[in-house]
Amino acid sequence: MKKIEAIIRPEKFQTLRDELSSVGIGGLTITEAAGTGKQKGQTGVFRGNTFQIQLLPKLKVEMVVDDNQVDGIVDIIIDSCRTGNIGDGKIFIHPIEEIIRIRTKERGAEAVL
Amino acid sequence: MKKIEAIIRPEKFQTLRDELSSVGIGGLTITEAAGTGKQKGQTGVFRGNTFQIQLLPKLKVEMVVDDNQVDGIVDIIIDSCRTGNIGDGKIFIHPIEEIIRIRTKERGAEAVL
Amino acid sequence: MKKIEAIIRPEKFQTLRDELSSVGIGGLTITEAAGTGKQKGQTGVFRGNTFQIQLLPKLKVEMVVDDNQVDGIVDIIIDSCRTGNIGDGKIFIHPIEEIIRIRTKERGAEAVL
Ligand SMILES: Nc1ncnc2c1ncn2[C@@H]1O[C@H](COP(=O)(O)OP(=O)(O)OP(=O)(O)O)[C@@H](O)[C@H]1O
Ligand SMILES: Nc1ncnc2c1ncn2[C@@H]1O[C@H](COP(=O)(O)OP(=O)(O)OP(=O)(O)O)[C@@H](O)[C@H]1O
Ligand SMILES: Nc1ncnc2c1ncn2[C@@H]1O[C@H](COP(=O)(O)OP(=O)(O)OP(=O)(O)O)[C@@H](O)[C@H]1O
Ligand SMILES: [Mg+2]
Ligand SMILES: [Mg+2]
Ligand SMILES: [Mg+2]
Repeated sequence: MKKIEAIIRPEKFQTLRDELSSVGIGGLTITEAAGTGKQKGQTGVFRGNTFQIQLLPKLKVEMVVDDNQVDGIVDIIIDSCRTGNIGDGKIFIHPIEEIIRIRTKERGAEAVL
Repeated sequence: MKKIEAIIRPEKFQTLRDELSSVGIGGLTITEAAGTGKQKGQTGVFRGNTFQIQLLPKLKVEMVVDDNQVDGIVDIIIDSCRTGNIGDGKIFIHPIEEIIRIRTKERGAEAVL
Repeated sequence: MKKIEAIIRPEKFQTLRDELSSVGIGGLTITEAAGTGKQKGQTGVFRGNTFQIQLLPKLKVEMVVDDNQVDGIVDIIIDSCRTGNIGDGKIFIHPIEEIIRIRTKERGAEAVL
């Protein structure tokens, strides 16, 4: 199993979710986050004052899936969340050692489905 | 070390925390989250309108622990958070490579205790 | 690649961010969290009532970086976030298998920079 973690523009979530649902992927967790990307330490000037680049609100979407689902879901995330402008976000792939469904105590692939 | 991440019903947190405390487990981090499980893309009809299943509020509980504590804590989570109804949540086990206590710079098991 | 996850005092974030920016580290994600450390199950008495130790608000800071950046960033976090009092926080190091920039589809080190 892997965890796919995507940091996306919040306004892209509904499209992403619909696309995931259409291929049968339902299990996901979202968290409100904020961040900056590679425009690190960039400053701007606004009405004569220098200011540091703001933290932008982002949505963190986490999906634990089988290894063989990863590539397809990464493609769906890119297709759903890409605008071509800076700030479209990042996808991180994490190893997961075990998954357990609390209701049934099922583990592994049984618990993902 | 492992990170145990549990996505639970928020109303079960107090019970879980009390049970963990009673066996001496205190270190944990919580985050407000929302999600859906395997009822993916399910629709309902309410007063004539079709609607998509809602994202439900969940609590994410994260605990970094020694390997030999994992099985016992998983059992405590299941006992504390299971209602038997769908939506009881999931537990994910992640590998952790290092842990550092900021105050003392202790690492590894010393930093967990 | 690694993910450095730091659970810090919220009031230390601006200092941390400035120090990271000064060495060219810009990519990070923050989330509001709460937690307890090793003062597990501690109780206090206030105006005659026993109460359980509160969950304290913390900030979770996540940075995905190249392996060779980890030690330097850990040092910056400790220098920026340490007060010497209990509750300064924890740093967890996680393995990351892949990182993808959504805008360009770049992967690996190219996607971190
Ligand atoms: N290295 C990183 N570690 C953790 N989070 C990151 C990292 N890089 C980016 N993020 C998160 O992803 C969000 C979007 O980043 P962003 O898309 O701007 O990355 P970028 O590398 O600057 O790419 P682009 O050039 O397309 O803007 C940030 O606001 C932050 O929350
Ligand atoms: N594959 C997954 N990846 C990430 N988060 C998930 C996943 N599956 C479930 N979750 C999270 O766990 C929460 C509870 O899921 P839930 O218990 O409904 O899972 P389920 O597989 O549908 O089990 P049940 O049949 O008992 O309802 C969801 O709201 C979501 O936040
Ligand atoms: N084992 C753990 N797993 C997950 N989160 C933890 C763990 N230990 C601490 N945390 C998080 O880190 C925050 C700060 O912890 P804290 O610095 O008090 O740790 P500590 O081990 O008690 O160290 P100190 O003795 O310096 O207080 C907690 O509020 C919690 O959010
Ligand atoms: Mg950017
Ligand atoms: Mg469910
Ligand atoms: Mg403490």
